[in-house]
Amino acid sequence: MTPPPPIVTLLTDFGAGSGYPAQMKGVILSALPGATIVDVSHEVPRHDVLAGALLLEACAPRFPSRAVHIAVVDPGVGTTRRPMCLVDRDGRRFVGPDNGLFTPFLVGGRSYLAADPKVVRGPVSATFHGRDVFAPVAAWLAGGGAAEEVGPAIADPVALAWHVAERRGSEVRGQLVMADSFGNVLTSIRDRDLRGAPAEVTAVGQPARFVSTYGEGRPGELLALIGSSGRLEIAVREGNAAQLLGFRRGAAVVVRVS
Amino acid sequence: MTPPPPIVTLLTDFGAGSGYPAQMKGVILSALPGATIVDVSHEVPRHDVLAGALLLEACAPRFPSRAVHIAVVDPGVGTTRRPMCLVDRDGRRFVGPDNGLFTPFLVGGRSYLAADPKVVRGPVSATFHGRDVFAPVAAWLAGGGAAEEVGPAIADPVALAWHVAERRGSEVRGQLVMADSFGNVLTSIRDRDLRGAPAEVTAVGQPARFVSTYGEGRPGELLALIGSSGRLEIAVREGNAAQLLGFRRGAAVVVRVS
Amino acid sequence: MTPPPPIVTLLTDFGAGSGYPAQMKGVILSALPGATIVDVSHEVPRHDVLAGALLLEACAPRFPSRAVHIAVVDPGVGTTRRPMCLVDRDGRRFVGPDNGLFTPFLVGGRSYLAADPKVVRGPVSATFHGRDVFAPVAAWLAGGGAAEEVGPAIADPVALAWHVAERRGSEVRGQLVMADSFGNVLTSIRDRDLRGAPAEVTAVGQPARFVSTYGEGRPGELLALIGSSGRLEIAVREGNAAQLLGFRRGAAVVVRVS
Repeated sequence: MTPPPPIVTLLTDFGAGSGYPAQMKGVILSALPGATIVDVSHEVPRHDVLAGALLLEACAPRFPSRAVHIAVVDPGVGTTRRPMCLVDRDGRRFVGPDNGLFTPFLVGGRSYLAADPKVVRGPVSATFHGRDVFAPVAAWLAGGGAAEEVGPAIADPVALAWHVAERRGSEVRGQLVMADSFGNVLTSIRDRDLRGAPAEVTAVGQPARFVSTYGEGRPGELLALIGSSGRLEIAVREGNAAQLLGFRRGAAVVVRVS
Repeated sequence: MTPPPPIVTLLTDFGAGSGYPAQMKGVILSALPGATIVDVSHEVPRHDVLAGALLLEACAPRFPSRAVHIAVVDPGVGTTRRPMCLVDRDGRRFVGPDNGLFTPFLVGGRSYLAADPKVVRGPVSATFHGRDVFAPVAAWLAGGGAAEEVGPAIADPVALAWHVAERRGSEVRGQLVMADSFGNVLTSIRDRDLRGAPAEVTAVGQPARFVSTYGEGRPGELLALIGSSGRLEIAVREGNAAQLLGFRRGAAVVVRVS
Repeated sequence: MTPPPPIVTLLTDFGAGSGYPAQMKGVILSALPGATIVDVSHEVPRHDVLAGALLLEACAPRFPSRAVHIAVVDPGVGTTRRPMCLVDRDGRRFVGPDNGLFTPFLVGGRSYLAADPKVVRGPVSATFHGRDVFAPVAAWLAGGGAAEEVGPAIADPVALAWHVAERRGSEVRGQLVMADSFGNVLTSIRDRDLRGAPAEVTAVGQPARFVSTYGEGRPGELLALIGSSGRLEIAVREGNAAQLLGFRRGAAVVVRVS
């Protein structure tokens, strides 16, 4: 039986039509002819490292473990920020800048400086490490190379402050963290944080009715539900909750559990 | 000789950069390691089932018959609308919500409830059947599974009212149905409805000159031509007919045939 | 060892979600079942042949030489402009309209009319040669067909006027040519044109500080640097230089070299 083709995924803030993801794909296919390349997103809001980390958290675990995930939201390209490779505790592999983009996968993982000249062979531009560093490193890993060989261990990879939920008695407090393409707003409260049925949900001071799916909402009504990522989401049926709430990352969400 | 890789296509209103199509791809590649996955569109206007059906009508027949087509424009996700699998009269296979999205392919086809637990194995979220139901069902079909085994037959799949053309003497009457990315407007009149040379075309009360290709137009002039999908299109050379006409689905188009 | 799968890349101004690229992919996969298809861009500004040529120049050389590159920015579709296939001096193969889109690759290459009925077999619509002509020709080439067999040689392929740099003493003069997805502005001046350290850079009359990477900039400051394509770029750190300069193709950039 033929082994399944290696998989490399790409997440960037470059724009799908910019030509930059295509250049990365050319490099990957040159190094690894039969690779399956999957776009996770090229529309991460520009330089929003936290949004990139949240998207990666939702997407990477859905892929087979042989996949190597490149992520590039990299305002510090060309400065002293380190290029890194991470093997998380489940064996998933990530390649990108050491700027917090891999925060959800750091605990229990191993990080390496992605710099060994046997892996990063070509000239490295000052502005496009996605093509010149991360693509060749990912191709090397996806093709069977060991993470230990891409460079020395990094003991202190950068981690972002991560929005979480806090429980006080029957109240769970969290924050708004991201709006999706439908205007649904993800929060830092997860289903496992609730431990009980939400009786009352308030987002940015506005009440939201807890339901189990969008279709239960009335037109214009603010809803709260557990979304497909396991996070509490604020939504409006066939409407845009982010606009309605004036979405701002970090704004308060409170759930009273009965 | 190696058999050709299975093909799964995706059409959604999720937005290509939202991460939702990527999660579906992760599920498909986990179930079917060597699959070729093709994006048909993730930019269907949100919740516009008819626009999705029209796009699918134009695209699916261009693919090899072994392709399985997932389509998800699904305002009723999580409600009682049925998940379905369709095998059309030409053997093409489709997976998605039973809400009319497959209208152009229903006649002469067989529909099944896509629900068998041997196919839909994992937990099913209330909001993301694209990932939790349709992706595993499509992977199962593309990998060689029989449609009959995904669930019991559906005798009455939902069909949308479909815009058609009506002929009265030398006049053919139809409607505007969709604007494409160039602002060209597709109508419900097909080349086979005309049976004769169009002498006069009127769209939303405005005259359009019948030509055979965009290049024949003068700047700003409203044109009518048979587009690449076999439908009469209203266009403006290097301009936007949808804007010029104030595009509204259902508005009248009349052709006098000589 | 299995030979690597053939590669076909696509560059168009159709919009990724329009369904038109998907129809092309269906045609390619029908003719060439195991093909790897890569989107270079479907967001070239509509009918901007020069922008398409610049993107292709940056991207095509990154791919393995077995790739066949389809490019369709084609305001003259259906008129007398010729469909062409180009083999450049490095053996790279291109398919698309003969309207200057392949200008950067013409010198030393061989061009052919892409029209032989054994290659272009199906009916050809007047408006979608991407699907009906270029896709089958590219599939045929990527599958091993010889360029000589797609049609007679074209002796005089169309070439666009190409922006270059001009040196007078210690001054190098060029033009703005394109803005990328970040608002960085590419110029017609290349690193090899400079032959010396830039001491002073002026873009559209405004001074720009020469740096080696975006991260060296202060907020709002106009920067000049050698970008990842080897061209002098005008940029603003975490800002939009195209907006700041009021980007207009052809506007002057002057570098004084010390």
